[in-house]
Amino acid sequence: MDAPNGSQDTEQTLDSQVKAFFDSAPPLQNRNDIIQKLNHFIQLNSLSSENGIGKRIVCVTSGGTTAPLEQRCVRYVDNFSSGHRGATSTEYFLKAGYAVIFLYRRGSFQPFCRSLPDDPLLECFEATEGLNIQVCEAYSKAVKTAIVDHHAAVDSGLLLKLPFSTIFEYLQMLQIISKPMKDIGPRAMFYLAAAVSDFYVPWKDMVEHKIQSGSHILDVKLVPVPKMLSVLRKDWAPLAFCISFKLETDSNILLNKARGALEKYNMHAVVANELSTRKEQVVVVTIDDKITVQRDKSKADDDVENPLIKLLSQRHSAYIEDSKRMR
Amino acid sequence: MDAPNGSQDTEQTLDSQVKAFFDSAPPLQNRNDIIQKLNHFIQLNSLSSENGIGKRIVCVTSGGTTAPLEQRCVRYVDNFSSGHRGATSTEYFLKAGYAVIFLYRRGSFQPFCRSLPDDPLLECFEATEGLNIQVCEAYSKAVKTAIVDHHAAVDSGLLLKLPFSTIFEYLQMLQIISKPMKDIGPRAMFYLAAAVSDFYVPWKDMVEHKIQSGSHILDVKLVPVPKMLSVLRKDWAPLAFCISFKLETDSNILLNKARGALEKYNMHAVVANELSTRKEQVVVVTIDDKITVQRDKSKADDDVENPLIKLLSQRHSAYIEDSKRMR
Repeated sequence: MDAPNGSQDTEQTLDSQVKAFFDSAPPLQNRNDIIQKLNHFIQLNSLSSENGIGKRIVCVTSGGTTAPLEQRCVRYVDNFSSGHRGATSTEYFLKAGYAVIFLYRRGSFQPFCRSLPDDPLLECFEATEGLNIQVCEAYSKAVKTAIVDHHAAVDSGLLLKLPFSTIFEYLQMLQIISKPMKDIGPRAMFYLAAAVSDFYVPWKDMVEHKIQSGSHILDVKLVPVPKMLSVLRKDWAPLAFCISFKLETDSNILLNKARGALEKYNMHAVVANELSTRKEQVVVVTIDDKITVQRDKSKADDDVENPLIKLLSQRHSAYIEDSKRMR
Repeated sequence: MDAPNGSQDTEQTLDSQVKAFFDSAPPLQNRNDIIQKLNHFIQLNSLSSENGIGKRIVCVTSGGTTAPLEQRCVRYVDNFSSGHRGATSTEYFLKAGYAVIFLYRRGSFQPFCRSLPDDPLLECFEATEGLNIQVCEAYSKAVKTAIVDHHAAVDSGLLLKLPFSTIFEYLQMLQIISKPMKDIGPRAMFYLAAAVSDFYVPWKDMVEHKIQSGSHILDVKLVPVPKMLSVLRKDWAPLAFCISFKLETDSNILLNKARGALEKYNMHAVVANELSTRKEQVVVVTIDDKITVQRDKSKADDDVENPLIKLLSQRHSAYIEDSKRMR
């Protein structure tokens, strides 16, 4: 059981867990390159706005993180997540006028690419008789959208893509992103749709080489990943508008878990989704209400992310206005 | 410790482990469709040959298998494997005149596609000013090879692709493939390059819903996957030429482990590779010799699979000849 919220003991424990996590994590590759890209992106989008106060910027996290079981990693525990939610939401955030930092799992869905098959290069193209290549008729619209709209977002400086694989990379990158996001205050949003490992093996406890097979039982002991949502809200970017997700396969416990997360991590909203119906409807849980959001079933190509991002964008605007009044 | 090889006790234990594995596995989706495709493929390639005795057919397995931790799977243990070895080997097997059944992990490398970047559709194509799409100059050769050569192999009936994700799917599909492969006797080869889970959670022992997080330690107990290589050699396809792989990160134990696997599973050869040098060299361990195979470093685009498949193809030919004499 967790200790009561906000007690000094809990905070000290969390602080030491967080310190232990980052101290033990293998250093992030390309750290300086990432910082440079981020600063440039946030600076660019803070200047360019019609009303002179800069764009709203959202960090969308997407896909699952891995927890390696060996330092020279052959085996790891992974979380199922296609990244569909994060990729789709990114499209609607761009449409709503946000600049988006897309922090995604390598190989997961990309914005504007979700109508494509698993292996688009091989499945969407064919060779002509003259051995030239061409798009198959059935995919011509999907391929065009993917390439044209995706590149347009990146090239216009509205979409910054940053890939991760392990829980170590993900949390280090989230911390790095929160620094310049802190500077833009309430205009920043975190939309934390990634399926982050709840458990990991601390780097120093990991065996170096591949675990040997045999006739024995493999007993893997994983420790909880420190609750970084608390740290993000409290220290990393206290003014940012924060949305987290709760995914369960058991609908009976879903809303209570979402409500629990809202209070425990002091989120502005928690999006509750059940594995089997997550593309049809979600429930947005805030401190004041529970709003069920559904896709428009009368339109074949509507997404639940369409009304979801509209709602969150409105709430974010209201939050920014509130913040101004409180200054 | 394992019981001594070949003892009746061991065999009974293995048989009961194998039975328990298949009894508990969730039924394979599209089972009948797979069987139909396979029978057609093997029939086609058994007829079409210049010397009238049918083509040699190899089943190349590629990529890693997952072991789910929950029935409605959110978390799973995965094995790192890009599938580069299997995809590259498939190209050289086709070049050597084989028909190839490519049993691969969804999302892993595909034959003729290994010079492409991670996300080929987005990275290899660009939008023109008229909003048409075109291949970027830098990737034009790689894209053409991928699409033209890949489709040529599939369309000519020489390459059959079958995808898997879990250890349950993989082993059920391997068993299905071995049935028609048994019928073609020594002309069949199994080239087992997939990184197969050594441990799994039996389906019936799995929790149904997502494991809850909290402040406790997660203790995952996995049992050994039954050694199906033995069963493949002994029962499923006793005349097929069988190659397995041994990957280690610790070069000190590699050759002994490979030799051990050769004897224990009665393989015709074991390819020993060390994680950090596996694209440069491998050692082919047989009952009579240990042959180090290296890529030709004087050629920028040579692969270690080039001399490896040449060697294995020769050995397979000799094995087929030997089999004829022994009839």
